[in-house]
Amino acid sequence: MASSPPSSSSSSEEATTSSSGSASVQFSKYSRRATLRSVVGRPDGGLGLSGKRAVVGGWVKSANVVKAKRGGGAMSPPRMPATETTGLTCTEVLMARVPLIRCIAKLIGGASAVDKASSSVSYKLGPVTALVRINDGSCVPDLQIVVDSSLCPLEQVTAIGASVLVEGKIELVEGKNQQRVVELRVDKVLHIGAVNIDNKYPLPNVELLTPDELIKDYPQLAPRTTAMASAARVRSEMVHAAHAFFQTNGFFHVNTPIITTTKVAGDRRKMFRVMRPTSKSDNRAITPEVVRASIKAKTKQIEALERSESNKEALEAAELDLQRASELAQQLEQQGSADFSDDSFQHPLYLSPDHTLHLETYACALSSVYTFSPAFQAESLEPHKHLAERWTIDAELAFAELEDAISCAVDYLMWLLCTVSKNCSDELKFLSTKENNGKNFHINSVVSSPWERITYNEAVNTLLQVGIVACGTQKEERMDKLTARHGTVKHSGFSMDMEQLILLVTGLNK
Amino acid sequence: MASSPPSSSSSSEEATTSSSGSASVQFSKYSRRATLRSVVGRPDGGLGLSGKRAVVGGWVKSANVVKAKRGGGAMSPPRMPATETTGLTCTEVLMARVPLIRCIAKLIGGASAVDKASSSVSYKLGPVTALVRINDGSCVPDLQIVVDSSLCPLEQVTAIGASVLVEGKIELVEGKNQQRVVELRVDKVLHIGAVNIDNKYPLPNVELLTPDELIKDYPQLAPRTTAMASAARVRSEMVHAAHAFFQTNGFFHVNTPIITTTKVAGDRRKMFRVMRPTSKSDNRAITPEVVRASIKAKTKQIEALERSESNKEALEAAELDLQRASELAQQLEQQGSADFSDDSFQHPLYLSPDHTLHLETYACALSSVYTFSPAFQAESLEPHKHLAERWTIDAELAFAELEDAISCAVDYLMWLLCTVSKNCSDELKFLSTKENNGKNFHINSVVSSPWERITYNEAVNTLLQVGIVACGTQKEERMDKLTARHGTVKHSGFSMDMEQLILLVTGLNK
Repeated sequence: MASSPPSSSSSSEEATTSSSGSASVQFSKYSRRATLRSVVGRPDGGLGLSGKRAVVGGWVKSANVVKAKRGGGAMSPPRMPATETTGLTCTEVLMARVPLIRCIAKLIGGASAVDKASSSVSYKLGPVTALVRINDGSCVPDLQIVVDSSLCPLEQVTAIGASVLVEGKIELVEGKNQQRVVELRVDKVLHIGAVNIDNKYPLPNVELLTPDELIKDYPQLAPRTTAMASAARVRSEMVHAAHAFFQTNGFFHVNTPIITTTKVAGDRRKMFRVMRPTSKSDNRAITPEVVRASIKAKTKQIEALERSESNKEALEAAELDLQRASELAQQLEQQGSADFSDDSFQHPLYLSPDHTLHLETYACALSSVYTFSPAFQAESLEPHKHLAERWTIDAELAFAELEDAISCAVDYLMWLLCTVSKNCSDELKFLSTKENNGKNFHINSVVSSPWERITYNEAVNTLLQVGIVACGTQKEERMDKLTARHGTVKHSGFSMDMEQLILLVTGLNK
Repeated sequence: MASSPPSSSSSSEEATTSSSGSASVQFSKYSRRATLRSVVGRPDGGLGLSGKRAVVGGWVKSANVVKAKRGGGAMSPPRMPATETTGLTCTEVLMARVPLIRCIAKLIGGASAVDKASSSVSYKLGPVTALVRINDGSCVPDLQIVVDSSLCPLEQVTAIGASVLVEGKIELVEGKNQQRVVELRVDKVLHIGAVNIDNKYPLPNVELLTPDELIKDYPQLAPRTTAMASAARVRSEMVHAAHAFFQTNGFFHVNTPIITTTKVAGDRRKMFRVMRPTSKSDNRAITPEVVRASIKAKTKQIEALERSESNKEALEAAELDLQRASELAQQLEQQGSADFSDDSFQHPLYLSPDHTLHLETYACALSSVYTFSPAFQAESLEPHKHLAERWTIDAELAFAELEDAISCAVDYLMWLLCTVSKNCSDELKFLSTKENNGKNFHINSVVSSPWERITYNEAVNTLLQVGIVACGTQKEERMDKLTARHGTVKHSGFSMDMEQLILLVTGLNK
């Protein structure tokens, strides 16, 4: 590559680091707080911000309640990892505070749980402090905030999933393995978005690493898990990198139709059909005149198809359409009106499974073009094992031959991998450690090794030899998709499945 | 705005301008030629490249044939505008060369046209030269190339719509109004992508300025007109600018589902229905057991909806689903099998008309997010006056209030307008002159004037007072779409219709 991909860190996201003392960490633009990315997401983990004031927000990921130390401000308790069982859980605090909850808990969990809570947290114990780990989805690491019971009812701020917006001072504390970390000692609670605790909020108190059940039952909460949020950030970075690559290399971005009347030969059984809603006023539009005009147009179309020696499939489809129109005309002549949607007769509509055809049109006008669009494929046999909609990057280069398209595809892939490797190191580290036990896809080894260019036949043979599609073979598989077409201008293109690439890079494809 | 938008000019697109003499203009990356943007699209119109060699490609937009001057190389004929009628048209050259075409032309156009061609171009006249205006879609200005008849049959290189790839030397010549312009004196024809001249290629010999008929009859050729190509480049620039804006400001890009089971309340009649193709194997899947399981799940869902005091619409829809499932169960018990697609019963599928709902889910996990996705709306009454699919930018900001969203929306719009104004000046100039007789939308006046923030009611009143939606009111209308929602976290968002914005900026919305 001639130029290197850009870094994702931007000026507006950087926090003020000029001086110590009471200076504040800057608000994120268009938001009423500093992102955690600009605090604990910094390369130094936020250590350089010690002593500064900050407003931060996030969702509660875990919480512990401990007895408050005297003069708590300066002497903060040690930072506690989420899995540690010291202190009290938020449910316990809740039970201690709200009599009704205590009664419910007694019914569900038996008396012992309630007794434990009652005995360990009570007003007799005096002031307590909550150690709350929050995350706002902007980076992998959480931030621990320390909230004193004098500031707000602790059951609100310790409820898993609740959103909090707090103000306080960033302080250095000792974390695991004597490592120095930062936490925020809260002195003002600005907003609490409470969760409905009665309904047993489903996010558990621990990291959900393979959130299959969560996704199925509560898809709206899936992005709150570190794994899904990390994958979403990697995807976002990759999409940005894709656009940056093509812009840097003079490609124009176009959007090709999603709803199309074009049937892709060979794929008809995998195409979704689109139906317009019918209303009574629609039917009025189908008069014998409309149908006769349609028959005329269709006949003309068939003549054109026959003349241009177009593919047989298109001709057959057109003839079928004509036949249906003729039948309809007969019906109308007899009955005077028809009672169905005009879509099914004039222009059967489908969801586009592929953007190449329309993209070629643009390439033959604007030179090098690309699109980032959803492609649809209905897999009737195993609908749950296939994605009905996948976002793909398709590129088409005019005045280019197959070798050019291959070079472009390789550079594009390198650019994406380099960008993600550089800007999403925390995310990839998290996903590789937790998801795959270190057996993940090693981006750096791919980026540094040379790429072999093989023919379609060689690729098919390789695939037949392994049976299991490994990472390496997947890349070759994508390379196969490079196709050369020759029309009015020499143009070549390639297509890459963004979702497959995300799975490959994040190692979530196990 | 704190930071200014980036310029679209990139290093790989820049041509070598270091020294004069026989140095060559660099190839565009992944393509076998220099783009016209890097030659005539330069701010100096390519004057600085005089004397350099270049390989360029493009499609023929117009052509004239003139008698070649002796020692033509250095003494080139003056550059001719497309509308000038001196010289011969390509059809005339063609008729002179190909006897069959002459016969056809006689049948169609009468003898006089043929006679004119025969008398003006003949082998007796000696060598002729074609002045061919080409464009590769990378910029507004065309490049004139000068091709001698000794290099190739001129009827090939002068056919409107043909693609050519040629090599030669960039020379300074005198254009209109004694202005100095560049042209390419061709000494090597590398490739010609011929057009099928028999079929009356539809692109006429003049600029198509309002290509309504062309779009209708030959949509694949529409982007070859300067107007459509300009609009496509403006759109591409705007899409790039949109992504750059959100990336710079720390937003994550997400893609929300296109095919959805969610019915948007109030919009049901405008939603496209999606049907999976049915196959015989599908029907086997619908057994009484499957239906019973589905009934169980639906009952559970209704209970949950009743508990959570969700909206009435969702509850009604769920109850309707349950009723249908129960009916199906009855049928199955009686008949043993059902003969229709499972889609219509288990999960009715729709095309998403709006991305806000899913985007909120992401905002409540990743903080500030945006999406650039197609939104679908079926307008049953006037399908040809409404776009069934529109690409929209939707943004959702966590920990943000309405004022933040408005600030973000205004900055975003400013960023887009500044970028387009800076990087697409040629395109906007072309569109404003030809399309709207100078009555176009003045970007600079909008960028420099302050924006008023009005309430929804004020906006509605303004709209009622004007009745015609003018440019100014369209902006206000979009501002109305800013909405504030309060869930578990304070979050606000906005939505902008990319297609509407393109129409506004290019002035094509007349």
